[in-house]
Order: sequence, then structure tokens, then C-alpha cells
Amino acid sequence: MYKCSLERMTDKIKTFSKYGDAGHGGITRYSLSPEAIMARKEFEKRMKAIGAIIEVDDVANMYATLPGSDPTAKRIVMGSHCDSVKNGGNYDGILGVMSAMEVLETVYAEKIPHKHPLTAMIWTNEEGSLYPPAMMCSGIVCYDYLPEDIRGKFKYEDMLASKSILDSSKTFGMALDASGYKGDKKYRLSRDKYLYMFETHIEQGPILEDNNKEIGVVDCVLGMFNYRIKFYGQTTHAGTFPMPKRKDAFFAASKALCYLHEEIDKLGYPELVYTTGEVVCHPDVHTCVPDFFEFSFDSRHEKPEVLDKVLKIVKSLEDKNWCGCTCKVEKAWNRDTVYWDKKLVSYVKEAAEEAGVSHQYIHSGAGHDAQFCAYVIPTTMIFVQSKDGLSHCEPEYSKPEHCTDGATVMLNAVLKADKEST
Amino acid sequence: MYKCSLERMTDKIKTFSKYGDAGHGGITRYSLSPEAIMARKEFEKRMKAIGAIIEVDDVANMYATLPGSDPTAKRIVMGSHCDSVKNGGNYDGILGVMSAMEVLETVYAEKIPHKHPLTAMIWTNEEGSLYPPAMMCSGIVCYDYLPEDIRGKFKYEDMLASKSILDSSKTFGMALDASGYKGDKKYRLSRDKYLYMFETHIEQGPILEDNNKEIGVVDCVLGMFNYRIKFYGQTTHAGTFPMPKRKDAFFAASKALCYLHEEIDKLGYPELVYTTGEVVCHPDVHTCVPDFFEFSFDSRHEKPEVLDKVLKIVKSLEDKNWCGCTCKVEKAWNRDTVYWDKKLVSYVKEAAEEAGVSHQYIHSGAGHDAQFCAYVIPTTMIFVQSKDGLSHCEPEYSKPEHCTDGATVMLNAVLKADKEST
Repeated sequence: MYKCSLERMTDKIKTFSKYGDAGHGGITRYSLSPEAIMARKEFEKRMKAIGAIIEVDDVANMYATLPGSDPTAKRIVMGSHCDSVKNGGNYDGILGVMSAMEVLETVYAEKIPHKHPLTAMIWTNEEGSLYPPAMMCSGIVCYDYLPEDIRGKFKYEDMLASKSILDSSKTFGMALDASGYKGDKKYRLSRDKYLYMFETHIEQGPILEDNNKEIGVVDCVLGMFNYRIKFYGQTTHAGTFPMPKRKDAFFAASKALCYLHEEIDKLGYPELVYTTGEVVCHPDVHTCVPDFFEFSFDSRHEKPEVLDKVLKIVKSLEDKNWCGCTCKVEKAWNRDTVYWDKKLVSYVKEAAEEAGVSHQYIHSGAGHDAQFCAYVIPTTMIFVQSKDGLSHCEPEYSKPEHCTDGATVMLNAVLKADKEST
Repeated sequence: MYKCSLERMTDKIKTFSKYGDAGHGGITRYSLSPEAIMARKEFEKRMKAIGAIIEVDDVANMYATLPGSDPTAKRIVMGSHCDSVKNGGNYDGILGVMSAMEVLETVYAEKIPHKHPLTAMIWTNEEGSLYPPAMMCSGIVCYDYLPEDIRGKFKYEDMLASKSILDSSKTFGMALDASGYKGDKKYRLSRDKYLYMFETHIEQGPILEDNNKEIGVVDCVLGMFNYRIKFYGQTTHAGTFPMPKRKDAFFAASKALCYLHEEIDKLGYPELVYTTGEVVCHPDVHTCVPDFFEFSFDSRHEKPEVLDKVLKIVKSLEDKNWCGCTCKVEKAWNRDTVYWDKKLVSYVKEAAEEAGVSHQYIHSGAGHDAQFCAYVIPTTMIFVQSKDGLSHCEPEYSKPEHCTDGATVMLNAVLKADKEST
């Protein structure tokens, strides 16, 4: 039973929080931005200091590897991403990188024997905040193994051509060329060289905190679907058009949203979540009745049959008249539930038990690079308690003690995996 | 009883529709844009052709004047604006300019005797589509006479500094300097030189069409108030946060909007209109629960006591819990009902009767330059039937016959005003 260092972990949290500090306790650290480059250099410096070999693949995914006792053994890799959303926090993504670093630093400091090379890694552009889509570079690397409908989103050329949301004259490919971190395709994570993947991440929800558990033993990433729900009305002048003749697309959407909540809540699945986070209003002028309103609809649950019931309700919107407006429901994308490797999940659970870290099984509602990786090699995840369940915002917080215990659990799970094939 | 020319009016409609033609039957003609300059040159050319004297004031308002028989008499002015909204139609604003031109052209062609000089004018930047606010240059010219709370929006320096919504490095002042139409302040419409103002405009609503009337004898511009209704929740990740703990600001706003419709409709005022045309959603990402949602609330009615009842309902939103979100109701601005000059209104009605043009009394729900003018000199408006009540969009349409009859009514009303003080 080895333990990671609270002191070292706390120092890493403090250090990485500087790179992109947005002045209110959080960070804005877009992928390949100057701030993200600083974080990469810090990673490189600390990993080189313990003798790790640094490799960078052609989409800037970084791999720092401590050799094991068997030069022919495949690598066990841990990691996550170091980019953030706009005004994000100091834990989402980077905690998985820091935990992987902490595992390697502990292995080095304690001279822990291991057969397999151990790799700490940074995935490029997980958030997709500046260059969509999210999980871009795990999508590229795992491309050949992904289900066809997911894969379509991650064509290499399309990814290089992805435009900056701040400046459409800039592409991800240009940022990659300018970053100094465009390496060689031969270093990509692959079945040939890599055995297992572990990703530690903050929970991003309140379940562990509510249940007073430090660590989540993650068993799957929830299946989900994403639709766009569109309402078509007629724009007219705010002052001149009698109410009964109006076809107000925003009012139509509001009524439909209330209807969705009522009907879906009647299904009675406490673990079901659904979110309408993005809207479009046209012409979006205070003196005009909106002729178009659109909102996104994202729903997640482990069981496909539950998602099917939700989708049926969503699709039924098309059959109704919404204040004179018509409704179109369009699929954006969906994914099935991705179950983590059962053996690796059991290693995590055993490691938590042996380390005396309070824990429980949990699903991941959010998507992570690990879920694409799972199509390539056996993969699992570890969650660390999030204060108030908040993430993607500046108040995002996890206690350094919990972060350290998360690294300890990952370390010991990795060592179980390392021994297994001895 | 004089009649305007259908042929001449039809030719003007065709000609002006070219300046800013957006390819789908409508125009985009922002104030002082190259397209608007073409429209101004057309106005200038046609007015010079009948011997009118062209004057331009310091904010590019253009005045074309036919002298009358009494060199000491004040001018009677007619006009509207030649700018449009994005993808607007061929009638809003420009119809009032073309009608004023048509009146002068008829007076010239028919050699109609008149004592007062007759002026056709173009107000600059009525829509405020590129450089807000709307009614900018009537606001500037009428500044000294406006009620204090309205006036505050139209400070000369602020107007010059107004930034282009397309390019924040450009200001209205820069556009004015570059236009070649920055004239002299001494030419501004004033009480000293101007006696009465008439503005012809499309109705922008379906009332005249529904009642089968060509022309509206406008009696007032409706009073209105404009509020911003804001909802504050908590953003969380779409996949990780249980539904009962969410504070979804978009859902809160939707519930509140449905509540507003229910409660306001219960008041039972058929002439009351209210519009929620503009929204803000934050962070506006499909994987995040919105922590902020805002919509505009614009309500219009002739009677202040009716608007007070509506406002009471709107303000009551603050006292309720909206799905865990708080609500703030903030006043943007309001205005009282502006009644047109009773004598001028009666001239319009008599002129319509004598010309045998079908007509009815009507309120203006929309704001117009004339309403600021009304604080300076006696003013009134004439409405022309709008097909399907549509405006601020490409299908906007009024029959050339109705447009010509509108000009005929304005001509004969102006001649009544001209005679009155003989």
C-alpha cells in the first residue's frame, strides 16, 4: 500500500492554477493557448526531473513515460487534459494530469518496482472551447476504433480545419503548427504500445459530497442523445400586431419546454438528466416578435430503453401546435453507454478499500477522453468529490486531501494492473 | 381635390427598391451606407428636377423645399426615413419619403397654388439598425423639446460615438463624416422655420387589411414600457447534476413567460400588445445548465392605467421562486402616449373622405420620427395598409394604388393646412 504526497499534490494544484488565472479563483486556458503551453512546459519540466521520457504525437498529445523492469512490456497510461472552458476551474482535466504526474513522482520517490512502463499524459483540446468539437484529439487518435456515427465527427482534416470561435481566420491546424507541440504520429496511443488507460477526474456533480464519499469508482459513461428543437413562427412588429394573430417562436418554445419537463418527469427515473443549455432566437430584437427559436436538448441515462422513452416525448413535440408555430426536432448526435473494463474497475475498488478511502460506485454523466480510449484498450476512471457538484466554473473545487487520495487509489490500482500480468 | 400619380409612385417604388436589394424582394439599407447614399442621390436628383432647394443639416437630415407664394410663411414638412433594418422591405420609411416627393411632384406638375413652402425630407438613421438607437436623428434635432427621460438617450456626443454593431471600431460620427451628407446645423427642423409635420408610413399591422381600409387616420403613438427580465440560477454540467438540485435559468424564464401570458391575458384588453423579442442565455453551451437567462418585455397601450396593470404583473415575478432561480425586473425605458395634433388629424380625415379613399382611425403601435417632431411642431401621421400586417421583413408589401392614395390624402391634407392660415 503506497501513498501519494499531499504536499506535492498541493504544490501542483497551486502551480497549475497560475497558468491562465482569470483573476477570480479560476482559469481560462484554451487548448494550445500561451497559458496551456505554460502548463505543458511545467508538465515537461517535472516529468523530466524524475527521468521520464517525453513524447509528443502529431496532434500535440503529450506522453511522459517512466520505463519499467520489462523492456518488452506495454505501457500503462494515466492522464487527462490541461485545457479549460472559458472561466473554468482549477480541477476539471488538469486534476487527471496532476494525478498521473503524482503517481509517477511517487513511483520514482519511493522506488516502487513495476514491470510495465508507466505513462502520464495530456490529451490536447478536450474541452473544444476554442476549437470545437470537445474530445477532439482522443477522437483523432482513437478514430479507427470508434463506432461509425461517432467517428464521423473526428476526421483528421476536419479537425485541422476547425475554426477558432473567437477568430474565424484561425484554425486548430494553425494553432498546432504555431504551438511547438506538433510531434510525430508514431507516438500516438495505440494497442501495440499501450495496455491499460486510467483517467482521474473531478465528479462534476454533487453525489459523492451528498453521500460523504471521497472517491467515485466509475463504472460507465452514460449513454446520451443530443437534439436541436426548432420552432418556426412569424416575425411582426412589437407594437402593431394584435396578440391573437401572433406566431411567437420564443413563447412556443417556452410552452414546449414546460411540457417536456412535465412529461419527462412523469416517467419517474431519478437518475435521468436532461438539459436545454443553448438557445438561438431570431431576429432577437426587442421590438420584433421572434420568428425562430431553437434550443438544444441533451439527455443522459445508463439504459437505452429509458432514453428511448424520453426521445419519444421529445419527438411528439412535432405533432403539436405551439401557439401557431411549427416544431422540428433534429438529431445532432447520440452515443451508447460506455462501460469501463470490469477488471480495472475492480482494481480501483480494491485499491480504495485497501487505502481506507471512502468510496462508492458512480456513473459518469459527462464525456471524457477515456471513453474514446475504451474502444482501443481497457480503460477506467476514478472520480474525486466536487464541492457543491460545481464544474466548468470558477468556484469548482476539490479538497487537496481528496485529490491526493484519488492519486493514491489510482497508483495502487495501476500497481495491481502491473502485477496482474507479471 | 387633387390626385397623385400612380405611374410616378410606382416608378419611385421600383427605383428605390434597387438601392440595397438583398435579392429576395427586400432590402438591407443601413443609414449612411453606400446603398442609403444612392437613395439620397435619387431623392436629390428628383427634387432638384422640380426646382426644390436642397438643404442638409449637421446630422444629414435632408430637406427639399418648393417655395410658396408667401416668402415669409413657415414651411409645411412631410417625410420619413430611407434606412431599413437588415433584410427589411421596400416600404417601411421610404414610403413616407416617396409620398412626400410625390406630393411635391404633383404640386409642381399640376401647378397647385400654395402659400407655404412645402418640404419633403429624409430623417437620418430612424431604424438605428447599424448605429443604435432608433430614431436617432429626430431625437437629436428635437432634443430641446423632448421629455427629460427620453432626451437622455439622444445626447449629441453620445450619438456621434455610437458604435457600429458590425465593427466596434466604427462610429456613427465617422460614418457621418465619410458620407458627404454632413451639412449645417442651421438647417435643422425648428419651430422658427417649420409650421407642421406630416409623416406617411405603412401600418406594420393587419388592422386596415382586416377591416378592408386603404388608409389609417392615425390619432396617436401608443405609450409603452420596456423592461429586462432576468433570471439567476446556477450552471452545472449537463450530465452530472441530478434534476431536483438544478437551478436552470432558461427553464425558470420559460415558466415565467407562460405565467406572464396567462396573467396578462386575464386582464382582457384586446388592444394591449406585449412582446418578448430579445433573449440572453449564459453560458449558452449545450452541455451546461444555464445560470442566467434574460428576456426583453415591451408592452404598449394607449392608456397608462392599462400599462400600470401589466407592469404590476411583470414586477410580481420578483416575488416568486422560479425553479430555484431568482428574478430581477429592470426598467429599460418607457414613454407616454403621444397624441397627434387634433386639427391635422381632422384634415387627414377630411382629405380621405373627399378623395373617396376608404379609411379608419388607428393608433400607431410603432415609434416614428414624427413622435419626436410632435414635441416641436404640430404633427400627424397617415398609415397605408400593409399586406398581412408584415414589416421589417422582405415580404413587407403595400399596393401601389394604396401608396398613391396615401400620397393623395397627404397632399390634400397639406393643402387644407396651407389654406387654413391664409
